[in-house]
Amino acid sequence: MKYLKNAWYAAAWADELSQRPLARMICETPIVLFHDTERRPVALFDACPHRFAPLSLGRVQGDRIACGYHGLEFGRDGRCIKNPHGNGATPAALSVRSFPVVERCGMVWIWMGRSEMADSKHLPEHLKAFDQPGFVWSHGNLNVAAPYEMVVDNLLDLSHVEYLHPFLGSAGNSKGRTMRVEHDGNLLICRTEATDTPVTPLFRLMREGDESVDDENGDLRGETHWLAPANIYLDTTTTRVGAPLNTAISVPTYHLLTPATADSTHYFWAAGWNRLTDRDDVAQMLRTGIVNAFENEDEPMIRACRSRMHSNDLLENRPALLPIDEASVLARRILGRLIDVESKENAVLPDLG
Amino acid sequence: MKYLKNAWYAAAWADELSQRPLARMICETPIVLFHDTERRPVALFDACPHRFAPLSLGRVQGDRIACGYHGLEFGRDGRCIKNPHGNGATPAALSVRSFPVVERCGMVWIWMGRSEMADSKHLPEHLKAFDQPGFVWSHGNLNVAAPYEMVVDNLLDLSHVEYLHPFLGSAGNSKGRTMRVEHDGNLLICRTEATDTPVTPLFRLMREGDESVDDENGDLRGETHWLAPANIYLDTTTTRVGAPLNTAISVPTYHLLTPATADSTHYFWAAGWNRLTDRDDVAQMLRTGIVNAFENEDEPMIRACRSRMHSNDLLENRPALLPIDEASVLARRILGRLIDVESKENAVLPDLG
Amino acid sequence: MKYLKNAWYAAAWADELSQRPLARMICETPIVLFHDTERRPVALFDACPHRFAPLSLGRVQGDRIACGYHGLEFGRDGRCIKNPHGNGATPAALSVRSFPVVERCGMVWIWMGRSEMADSKHLPEHLKAFDQPGFVWSHGNLNVAAPYEMVVDNLLDLSHVEYLHPFLGSAGNSKGRTMRVEHDGNLLICRTEATDTPVTPLFRLMREGDESVDDENGDLRGETHWLAPANIYLDTTTTRVGAPLNTAISVPTYHLLTPATADSTHYFWAAGWNRLTDRDDVAQMLRTGIVNAFENEDEPMIRACRSRMHSNDLLENRPALLPIDEASVLARRILGRLIDVESKENAVLPDLG
Repeated sequence: MKYLKNAWYAAAWADELSQRPLARMICETPIVLFHDTERRPVALFDACPHRFAPLSLGRVQGDRIACGYHGLEFGRDGRCIKNPHGNGATPAALSVRSFPVVERCGMVWIWMGRSEMADSKHLPEHLKAFDQPGFVWSHGNLNVAAPYEMVVDNLLDLSHVEYLHPFLGSAGNSKGRTMRVEHDGNLLICRTEATDTPVTPLFRLMREGDESVDDENGDLRGETHWLAPANIYLDTTTTRVGAPLNTAISVPTYHLLTPATADSTHYFWAAGWNRLTDRDDVAQMLRTGIVNAFENEDEPMIRACRSRMHSNDLLENRPALLPIDEASVLARRILGRLIDVESKENAVLPDLG
Repeated sequence: MKYLKNAWYAAAWADELSQRPLARMICETPIVLFHDTERRPVALFDACPHRFAPLSLGRVQGDRIACGYHGLEFGRDGRCIKNPHGNGATPAALSVRSFPVVERCGMVWIWMGRSEMADSKHLPEHLKAFDQPGFVWSHGNLNVAAPYEMVVDNLLDLSHVEYLHPFLGSAGNSKGRTMRVEHDGNLLICRTEATDTPVTPLFRLMREGDESVDDENGDLRGETHWLAPANIYLDTTTTRVGAPLNTAISVPTYHLLTPATADSTHYFWAAGWNRLTDRDDVAQMLRTGIVNAFENEDEPMIRACRSRMHSNDLLENRPALLPIDEASVLARRILGRLIDVESKENAVLPDLG
Repeated sequence: MKYLKNAWYAAAWADELSQRPLARMICETPIVLFHDTERRPVALFDACPHRFAPLSLGRVQGDRIACGYHGLEFGRDGRCIKNPHGNGATPAALSVRSFPVVERCGMVWIWMGRSEMADSKHLPEHLKAFDQPGFVWSHGNLNVAAPYEMVVDNLLDLSHVEYLHPFLGSAGNSKGRTMRVEHDGNLLICRTEATDTPVTPLFRLMREGDESVDDENGDLRGETHWLAPANIYLDTTTTRVGAPLNTAISVPTYHLLTPATADSTHYFWAAGWNRLTDRDDVAQMLRTGIVNAFENEDEPMIRACRSRMHSNDLLENRPALLPIDEASVLARRILGRLIDVESKENAVLPDLG
């Protein structure tokens, strides 16, 4: 499948990396990740050039990784720096591709395209939310057996929450919800609003001892930022009916989606909240609720949708699109255009594989 | 694969349907089945036209089914009759294909071809056996990981019973068995007879306290009706040697075969008997014996045969045919001709998918 | 895939055969093996010509095997000699291919090509090692989910032992190891030597009470015989530094590899040793150590290498070859040439399938 290559993809939470190698498939490319002795992330193509043994089955030794089959050792730039056999020659062919990686806000980002174009200024801006005062955060990741574009579809259309997620949504939220979509280059922002509408079990739980949202109904707002190819920031807030936004219970979430293969996706998530932030039981409950929604509600549904499609390109399957699909269709169009442009540029440049 | 479309297929035992949706693959087409409020069967294409979510993951609400992903609701004719989002428009494109279904003698039949050609007069006649006085019946269904044509082959050649089914057959039945095959349109009748031959353990068990079959040997008869595409009625009887048929212990069975995919089959079975009809232990023993024969003897053997074939078309594999294959080869020929005729008709008509 | 057909392949250890049929896939061809009443091995194509039921699901009856589906019986030449149905005709078409088989030194060998070319003089010579006095032997077999050529690669390059097999190898063995490769027709001999080098845990254990190898270091020698297509004899010895070879602790091993399919291999192994030959604990420990090395170290590594290749032809994947690959690349070249020659010969002869 064609992926956008010149882009930052979430590769791993930094706390997943250590001096034990981590294998991860990204855009159908096997990658081995580890921390060097200075805790800087390293990402190499995960196959020894000699016999294709996954380097992730080898051992990290300081700043290098040794193949577990015949002991060749590779540095962070992917060059073989030790061949223990015969005359010990390490010709240039004895090297693996090294990928630009950068750690930002606890996430290790990888650049799958041309190294010379990798620039950390293209990292998703919205990661800054982690620094917002008054919030605590939880994070994790899971593997979704569905194409990443379909996970984006799911997240850019929150009208499904009422039907699929009893804990996160409330019956009746669809009624009277408005949606505004705007976009600027690779960024798309989608705002939904449902005023004087039943609050969700999640928010009801978090308003404990808080008079500002004491009513059955409230004003619900969602603001979703999608940055190509598939990194999403979603801030959901609830206030008392008519109350200003700065009184809101706020649950910002990240959904950093990285294609593993055409039909599977790494789903890195983080969730913050600004109420009951010192309560372990609330943290535990939120974490369980979020993971449950992804694993037991979203993923089976997306997989089931995929099982009814003859290809993983939604539009090829001629869906009956609705107004609620505006943002997700627009995102697909933007991404398709970016991939087309990149393919044409690559056609006139030597291929890096 | 090509299936006969303009034909009734067994879709489900009526007691499998309720107001909970039932998903079933039929001729490679995903179908959702349920009972409406008047217990009439409904069969729809099992994918919402919006995002292809299986409707079987949704909820039946009275006479309609609601998609579990975004809440669209569909009536028994497949038209969307509620869109809870935005302006609530339900354009004609927002509909799923509805399939003719009919309930007869406890079985729900589905018509996979052109709706206007569906006529209950084409339903298998022999279903009437259910009404025969003096019999009790048991029924069930199982999934067979083999092409439906190979399950038909198995049933149209009872000479395998002696070798594969110790409980249902007896050593020596093959010797002196005669077979007569006749056919009329889509119906094929195959009669086998073995006189003065060892009776089977099954019959020996059922003659308990019955002087008419007290001997070691008896006359065994089988009459098999195959109706294209794959519905089989098989009446097996045993009498004392030379005794008239109306004194027979009789075990009529149905084998209603519906292709799920090219290599898997829904096998709906029913068995009746006219002795010891008030005995629960006999009913239980018969049921166990029949299910065991299908699940642990026929299915593994048919799957093993399939594993040795390079395609699921038996004749393409150039088998060494024997006289015992007469009925099954004829059935394949009749079915092949019907499918050919239908394909040509469809070539001049708009395709319904 | 293309295999060398006119060659002897290890089919089964003789102690695996009995009057119960054994099913084994060899070169993508299903084979059924059994012992006739005189304990001679029989090998037939494992599918009844009638309906393709695997004969291995049937019953051996004396010198014949009866199909479990309809009872046809076949002799050791593959001809049907009993048809229990109808007039009992057994036309010539009612036969299965019979394969030449020969038992030698406890191994049953099968010839997958033209029967008239099968000659036991082509059996691997080196099998004679079994008869060497002063040795005891253990043997077994396992299934490897990897192409047989990659298992050969593994065995023809012992430099991996140091990295992959802590029990069989020692850190530092690679340093100063020399390798000499010679070949003669279908036979390739590869000799490695590492003098004054740390002895392995295995040898340390076996020199118990033996002054000749009392030092930390020793002289290690390996002699590998590869005979096309994939039968390997490997003799590894250790002596005291500078001591003559007739004082060596010796562990000769066989690695008889038979392709099951393009991506799976039957691995028949045997190991002998000339020290502590009366000790059950040593026999048990050796057996466990060898099986562990194959199952838990070699096989997962070879499978992992395969997972990184786009085809099972190593050279198509453009590996960065090293001097240690000399023998394995040569073996691939010899085998490739033999297969090419055979293909051309077959092109002018009638095909036997």
